[in-house]
Amino acid sequence: MTDSTAPLAYIESHLDDTLDRLFALMRVQSVSTDPAYAPECLKAAQLLANELTGLGFDARVAPTPGHPMVVAHHDGPGPHIFFYGHYDVQPVDPLNLWRRDPFDPAIETKADGARIIVGRGASDDKGQLRTFVEACRAWKETTGALPCKVTILFEGEEESGSVSLDPFLRANAEELKADFALICDTLMWDADTPGLTIGLRGMAAGEVTIHAARRDLHSGLYGGAARNPIQLLATILGEMKDADGHVTLDGFYDGVDPVSADVRKSWDALGFDDGEFLGDVGLRVPAGEKGTDALEQIWARPTAEVNGIWGGYTGEGFKTVIPAEAHAKVSFRLVGRQDPDKVWAAFEKHVRDRLPADCSAEFASRGPGSPAVSVPSDSPPLAATRAALDAEWGKAALIGCGGGIPVVTSIRTILDMDTVLVGFALPDDNIHSPNEKYELKSFHKGMRSWVRILGALGEMKAAKTVQAAAA
Amino acid sequence: MTDSTAPLAYIESHLDDTLDRLFALMRVQSVSTDPAYAPECLKAAQLLANELTGLGFDARVAPTPGHPMVVAHHDGPGPHIFFYGHYDVQPVDPLNLWRRDPFDPAIETKADGARIIVGRGASDDKGQLRTFVEACRAWKETTGALPCKVTILFEGEEESGSVSLDPFLRANAEELKADFALICDTLMWDADTPGLTIGLRGMAAGEVTIHAARRDLHSGLYGGAARNPIQLLATILGEMKDADGHVTLDGFYDGVDPVSADVRKSWDALGFDDGEFLGDVGLRVPAGEKGTDALEQIWARPTAEVNGIWGGYTGEGFKTVIPAEAHAKVSFRLVGRQDPDKVWAAFEKHVRDRLPADCSAEFASRGPGSPAVSVPSDSPPLAATRAALDAEWGKAALIGCGGGIPVVTSIRTILDMDTVLVGFALPDDNIHSPNEKYELKSFHKGMRSWVRILGALGEMKAAKTVQAAAA
Repeated sequence: MTDSTAPLAYIESHLDDTLDRLFALMRVQSVSTDPAYAPECLKAAQLLANELTGLGFDARVAPTPGHPMVVAHHDGPGPHIFFYGHYDVQPVDPLNLWRRDPFDPAIETKADGARIIVGRGASDDKGQLRTFVEACRAWKETTGALPCKVTILFEGEEESGSVSLDPFLRANAEELKADFALICDTLMWDADTPGLTIGLRGMAAGEVTIHAARRDLHSGLYGGAARNPIQLLATILGEMKDADGHVTLDGFYDGVDPVSADVRKSWDALGFDDGEFLGDVGLRVPAGEKGTDALEQIWARPTAEVNGIWGGYTGEGFKTVIPAEAHAKVSFRLVGRQDPDKVWAAFEKHVRDRLPADCSAEFASRGPGSPAVSVPSDSPPLAATRAALDAEWGKAALIGCGGGIPVVTSIRTILDMDTVLVGFALPDDNIHSPNEKYELKSFHKGMRSWVRILGALGEMKAAKTVQAAAA
Repeated sequence: MTDSTAPLAYIESHLDDTLDRLFALMRVQSVSTDPAYAPECLKAAQLLANELTGLGFDARVAPTPGHPMVVAHHDGPGPHIFFYGHYDVQPVDPLNLWRRDPFDPAIETKADGARIIVGRGASDDKGQLRTFVEACRAWKETTGALPCKVTILFEGEEESGSVSLDPFLRANAEELKADFALICDTLMWDADTPGLTIGLRGMAAGEVTIHAARRDLHSGLYGGAARNPIQLLATILGEMKDADGHVTLDGFYDGVDPVSADVRKSWDALGFDDGEFLGDVGLRVPAGEKGTDALEQIWARPTAEVNGIWGGYTGEGFKTVIPAEAHAKVSFRLVGRQDPDKVWAAFEKHVRDRLPADCSAEFASRGPGSPAVSVPSDSPPLAATRAALDAEWGKAALIGCGGGIPVVTSIRTILDMDTVLVGFALPDDNIHSPNEKYELKSFHKGMRSWVRILGALGEMKAAKTVQAAAA
């Protein structure tokens, strides 16, 4: 059952057909942010639901207050996997910068001979989600079955804020819950190395206001005797880090683990160059904790950042004012098991502990924050996926992601699932820009990768009891 | 010659006349900021010049690119004193908040029985400058001479930026230079205690910009590895003061002297209440150096203040940005012999010493700054003035002034003279506001004070050779 020879051969002999189906999907003008394209969004959803029904899925177009979801289920012997993609695309303007009609896709050949699929959605996310659908087709056409039990969710509002996503996940949690999630909407490490994202940093963020005098004061009359809230805020924010770049908040590092030897080895193999990474933006000294390198700092270490600060007179010229208050927007990127609420509370304590008796602080936290999301490098689905990518590409990079991806957090918090992110896109794919493209190689080897991943996952024993039954 | 019995008696017997002359000056609508009142400004200058000519002064209306100056000289046996005042006034709007026509002055009686002179300029500065002119008249009318050689300068642009003052002082320095200067444009300590200002703090100020990456960065992609210039600026500004409130810049305290025992004793006698002073603006902890009280902090200690700060995202909501740069406006109030250029240079060094190798700082100093101005408490003119005030009021407060008064700095830097500031105004005089008033007691005892001061100064030996000859 999990011998992937036949489905891989199917991909090879049906490349033109897979491209035809991708083009058909790309011709649908499913721009989610512009209400004028709502019928096209529905059309894309229907196209995918019909196609999945044809492949034996129990598929439907599920309405939301915004654009509809596509939900599909297929039974199978292996673990229950949940695949997420999105059928909506970014607007195409400025149209005059496109080499061709963005909704009339075609294959072009680059100067170096590489062939690319050009058109809106080629990469983000129609091309990437189709690598998974075509892999399912290859298994079905050649074996009559899928190696895993599969639930698919295609969203139609990813490019316009995912407004309906969380309510939909909550309302349908029981139906959608599986053993773990897979997403194909991210980058490769480089053109020869698919990326396997194992961690996304979480976030705690908010605003602090320091109040001192009840009105702005003249620094001649009061300077020296009256507390300057800007100076106080600067001192407090400065003391948030020590000279070695460590964050000084109480308990900040609770739940932060060192990078495992396995992951470290994988990173070392990437040949990441701190100097090149920072040099691109005009910097050269990694700013994080002493003893860590830039890659670790962005993928595996938590941060404390001041994202905005303001207070006093900030216009032209000068005003010798001691303001009544000063403000900052502060955020913390979180890793491991750091608790966003505890980190924010530690920040509030750090501030309050440093206030003179006649000053006060006001905080506006941005809600509950989001914990980091990570897949341990030894988790069975990750190991299986990694082995499959190794088989197809000869290698796969275990990469971190310094930022969050909202849907992964939603899947984690609402559906209680880990997500393995597999990506075949490249940084120069022009997603969100004119002349979006997807390398034909990414599409081709992406489909082959999913054939292998489905096979490898099918050999896993289900990691845990699946509570949610397929519809 | 310096027995003031007769001139004091003259004041007593001519009170109504002195009021008539004050009212005549107050009826002139010499609002300097509004060009429509330029003829009135000229009229006020002519009135004063004519009056001084009548008193035997060699007086003239001296044109400037703006409103004219009144310059007058009178010979005398004692030291050569320079008296500054201004004949222009603030605008009167909102007119509907005045109890009477602001240019139709009158005596009103307050609920507590005290009589007040009401009208624009009653206190600032027509009433105050007239206390000096009437004292000169009293000496002339009763003795036929003045106890000192006197040069008077009345400005007509004090309320509109003193644009012509410095060029005029420079162009006429030789004519205007005297042994020391006297000004009557400040406050009393309280209703029973005239103020004798012995120090004005100086200033060094400017702007600093910290540059990090060459563009704004996403804190997910770069956070941790890329230097955050706001955090860096906060740390640098925070480290500008230690935990005890001392400024940490190299050599910052060079030229700062402790308060002398004489001055300290005088201050202790004032009964200044730190809690009340700070409580008025909602504070209660003196913010300056440990071991100093609020009065010393505002009058005799230098400061380092951040008057404005800005960087990153400061709008509604949140943006996880690491900005390319961060900015602050910084100022230092100076005392004693602190050198504004050296203080600013020490600030620049403090910043540069704390920059990582890939960041830079840009500075915009606000010109050369101004040194502090102070009159030692044992200087002969101050001692003579203080003794005269003691004789009239039973006491006099040696007070500091936390801010600068531009004309005093101009007199110091252009005419190389110390200034003794004597004031009879009260904080509730509504200067610059509707219903401006001057206590009749201030006017009466102010004239008597100047009679005594002129007498006391006349007994001084000229402190130094007067280089400038009267015209």
